[in-house]
Amino acid sequence: MEIVDIDGIYCNGIKKEQGLGIVKCKGVVAGVFTKNKLRSASVEVCKEHVSDGYIEGLIVNSGTANAYTGEDGINDAKEVCKLFSKLLNCNERDVAIASTGIIGRRIDVGWIKNNLPAVYKGIGNTRLHANRFANAITTTDRFPKKSYSNKIALSAVAKGAGMIAPNMSTMLCFIFTTAKFDSGELHEMLKSAVDNTFNMLTVDGDTSPNDTVLLISNQKDRVERDVFEAELEKVCYNIAKMIAKDGEGSTKVFEVEVTGAKSFEDAKIAAKSIASSLLVKTAIFGNDPNWGRIIAALGYSGALVKHELSLSFESKNECVKLIEKGKRLENEGEAKKFLERNNEFKIKIDLHLGDSHARAIGCDLTHDYVKLNSEYTS
Amino acid sequence: MEIVDIDGIYCNGIKKEQGLGIVKCKGVVAGVFTKNKLRSASVEVCKEHVSDGYIEGLIVNSGTANAYTGEDGINDAKEVCKLFSKLLNCNERDVAIASTGIIGRRIDVGWIKNNLPAVYKGIGNTRLHANRFANAITTTDRFPKKSYSNKIALSAVAKGAGMIAPNMSTMLCFIFTTAKFDSGELHEMLKSAVDNTFNMLTVDGDTSPNDTVLLISNQKDRVERDVFEAELEKVCYNIAKMIAKDGEGSTKVFEVEVTGAKSFEDAKIAAKSIASSLLVKTAIFGNDPNWGRIIAALGYSGALVKHELSLSFESKNECVKLIEKGKRLENEGEAKKFLERNNEFKIKIDLHLGDSHARAIGCDLTHDYVKLNSEYTS
Repeated sequence: MEIVDIDGIYCNGIKKEQGLGIVKCKGVVAGVFTKNKLRSASVEVCKEHVSDGYIEGLIVNSGTANAYTGEDGINDAKEVCKLFSKLLNCNERDVAIASTGIIGRRIDVGWIKNNLPAVYKGIGNTRLHANRFANAITTTDRFPKKSYSNKIALSAVAKGAGMIAPNMSTMLCFIFTTAKFDSGELHEMLKSAVDNTFNMLTVDGDTSPNDTVLLISNQKDRVERDVFEAELEKVCYNIAKMIAKDGEGSTKVFEVEVTGAKSFEDAKIAAKSIASSLLVKTAIFGNDPNWGRIIAALGYSGALVKHELSLSFESKNECVKLIEKGKRLENEGEAKKFLERNNEFKIKIDLHLGDSHARAIGCDLTHDYVKLNSEYTS
Repeated sequence: MEIVDIDGIYCNGIKKEQGLGIVKCKGVVAGVFTKNKLRSASVEVCKEHVSDGYIEGLIVNSGTANAYTGEDGINDAKEVCKLFSKLLNCNERDVAIASTGIIGRRIDVGWIKNNLPAVYKGIGNTRLHANRFANAITTTDRFPKKSYSNKIALSAVAKGAGMIAPNMSTMLCFIFTTAKFDSGELHEMLKSAVDNTFNMLTVDGDTSPNDTVLLISNQKDRVERDVFEAELEKVCYNIAKMIAKDGEGSTKVFEVEVTGAKSFEDAKIAAKSIASSLLVKTAIFGNDPNWGRIIAALGYSGALVKHELSLSFESKNECVKLIEKGKRLENEGEAKKFLERNNEFKIKIDLHLGDSHARAIGCDLTHDYVKLNSEYTS
């Protein structure tokens, strides 16, 4: 389902020299924001507005990040919220804002002022409107990202392609639902879903000052909490995978699944360490089943690991075991062919030390990543 | 001075299908080893032998890392120490060992047994002998690394080019001195020097299971502790810079100097975060003065940072200020020219929050890094 299939949600967007996307979405809200200490002025203002637990609308600009813009940036963000609130006929604090684009560049408030009325006039609840919004908020994305639950009314739209694209920044994700939970509950569930999905995704390890994930509920339906949690995590995970697939220059996306860890924390840092390793990423780009690099990344992850571990590559249809309880199986030839055949697969590791498990998402590191990020000039 | 200019030190080495380097060096010893939990069998054995605080010789093989080789690897390493100890006429525990090369491959003990006697017969204390040793322990290095103090008898030889070269591993550094300190003192000073130099170096963030730094003293001279500490750190810093310069595919080496931090820990993580950022590394490769990426890396480092910071690029002869106490100076044009002119420079950041400072060393991320690490097939 599209976000606009959720009752009462209307949106629109334009993409010209800059992008502007808006959503009319009265509801209870929770937000999770970047941990970057130099977070953008837009994040500061959004955080403040979302802290009330209620919004009537959401406005997103792409092209400028409004990061490292100081007091001016704060005033710009407030001004943008005010412009939209006048059209929505609500309080300025009931508007959420997000920005994505070049760091150090202020929002072009004049441009927004000129374009917002027409964009607002054109809002609607068709797939076309949803696509316009999704497209408006992209920067270096090769495609807009959307995902939804098959079980409940829960739908997300997002942008992101690398934690920071060439001088552009940010992962943004807006999730809409009808499920009736209060703002505290939504926040708890969103935080946990983000930790297990977006925070386990690594394109280049860089964290944008603008990352924003919002969850907005119009409170129309009762949904069991555990069902909602599971669906929310699923939707976030799908979006995270799409971002990895769209990772700058990436040609392959892989999951790292660590089982048998002594603790959940161990499982998480082990999985993330492998997914982040440049040597693992370049090996995968080169279809090289270089398990020594995976072992090395495990070893320096900080997790408790012992020699007697198992390691395999797995896709939907096949599995190649490389190490079984510490014993090297000499399947490198098979594993190489596996990598040549599969652009989406799992690296599975069983540490045989406990019951905890976690997964991380990564993509390969390619010539195009270096090209994109070195040839772009700010 | 060469290591062989230190009284009583004799060495030699050969480099054929594999490499073998040896040093006869009776003395008090201290060692710092990789933090990787899956450390190599050679590191295990070396750690054990060095823990006695005394060695008579050092044997290094290149080509195989003896990592992830289990019990067999331990036995191999012990066997190699034993072979050398027989020639030195000492206890097997008085031999230190280090290995560097492919993970998962055992040491070719037979090859060492066949070649060691001739290599030992040829040991000497000329520059030629030192060069043979330095060359024997290299793997993907473009050049061997040596550094020494101008003030005291302190000399180091090392290898390393990326924390893990294409499936080869490891930074090794052996430092020799005449300064009289006990093993505990040597360890304290070495640990601190390593933390401030090698541990602040980042080529790709991957930590080898084989990293080994040994400091060996023949106890002939009295040296003031603070003089020794300063010289030791200088020598380690020079070696670290050489490794960055030799970083896989790198064309530029840069220092990140963070001053005005609230705490030393903050200064360290801030400097390291910038030196490690792939987006900073690719920007530098592309001569792009993309300070937004530096700001972003500062922000997510975990250190306390505020908007009012200063940022500049500095070389021996020139300085370009980009941000002064939070104010952007719009010097990007100048900064771009600066980057085009300089292959070795400093990124200086004053956080204006305290008195602590630290520095990190990095190199750029280039097409050749991806090429080297993806096209190599294990």
